Amino acid sequence: MRAYSDLMTRLVEALSKLPGIGKRSAERIVFHLLKTRKEDALALGGLIHQLRENVTFCSVCHNFSDQKICHICSDPARDRGLICVVEDPKDVTAIEKTGEYSGVYHVLLGALSPLDGIGPEQIMVQDLLERLKKKKTREVILATNPNTEGDTTALYLVRVLEPLRVKVTRIARGIPVGSHIEYTDQATLSRALSGRQPV
Amino acid sequence: MRAYSDLMTRLVEALSKLPGIGKRSAERIVFHLLKTRKEDALALGGLIHQLRENVTFCSVCHNFSDQKICHICSDPARDRGLICVVEDPKDVTAIEKTGEYSGVYHVLLGALSPLDGIGPEQIMVQDLLERLKKKKTREVILATNPNTEGDTTALYLVRVLEPLRVKVTRIARGIPVGSHIEYTDQATLSRALSGRQPV
Repeated sequence: MRAYSDLMTRLVEALSKLPGIGKRSAERIVFHLLKTRKEDALALGGLIHQLRENVTFCSVCHNFSDQKICHICSDPARDRGLICVVEDPKDVTAIEKTGEYSGVYHVLLGALSPLDGIGPEQIMVQDLLERLKKKKTREVILATNPNTEGDTTALYLVRVLEPLRVKVTRIARGIPVGSHIEYTDQATLSRALSGRQPV
Repeated sequence: MRAYSDLMTRLVEALSKLPGIGKRSAERIVFHLLKTRKEDALALGGLIHQLRENVTFCSVCHNFSDQKICHICSDPARDRGLICVVEDPKDVTAIEKTGEYSGVYHVLLGALSPLDGIGPEQIMVQDLLERLKKKKTREVILATNPNTEGDTTALYLVRVLEPLRVKVTRIARGIPVGSHIEYTDQATLSRALSGRQPV
């Protein structure tokens, strides 16, 4: 037996494919969309459409953007001498939320992973080198993930950036704020010890 | 600082208004929509639009439908002599999922609640009476919620249906399947006792 109309069934199925949404949540959303103000529901549909039609990658840093150049690269208040290299646009979002960073970004759109066939040509490395050659840069912060792929990528970048004589730093690894030393894994704890700072 | 582009911010806000979706889930969904196949994302936007443009109430039973008459009322295999009265289209979905009911429905689109100014004229009662007068009906099952409003509505319907000489039943109240007698509230337990059935 079909519990609801064709169109509702199709929307429940499409919504269930979204991350974190199961069939029950999808149903609740469909019923909500049918009861909410019509203009709100139509606006949501329109925004999803616009998102995929208009959002592409910033031509400078490869962050997601609905303009040719993203809102960070085009912000005159940003320090263009400081470039933070990340793997993914999500990482830009995470760093922006700290409100502590005033430089610009370079999104690699991936990380080196030889086993998966991802080499330097598959990610935005060449592009980073050209960007650094064109514009004077004070410091490059490597903020790739602290895992095998991210560390490999950071090591590779250190090597290819060497001839450019730019200061290269790596974000600190250590125990996360609010955690317990007792429960911290050994790799993190030994990193935190070796990376200790004077107080 | 804005963590992402204008369009993405607007979509995150629109998605956060959906039930069960917080700001973080909304962000994940936006990033997912940007990475998924373009046609899937556009289809989702289109389905939401179509939902609000095409889904209205069935002219017979007032369930949600994308046709003039819903898929249940137009199903020739359904027993039209049996009408189950519910408050909301969601209740139709819940009962359909049991797979046990082969009759048709009547959705009241609300329940009597004098304190909120909802009387018989605000819900689909008159319409039910006309439907019963027009077509021969064997039994009306009152499946309004087992709370004050639902019980009030059921009592009211029993009174107005009396002159029509149709059999009227109320869904059973008792302890839910899979629960524990120990933890069942007193009202439910006393209902379960008084409504006991021969085995």
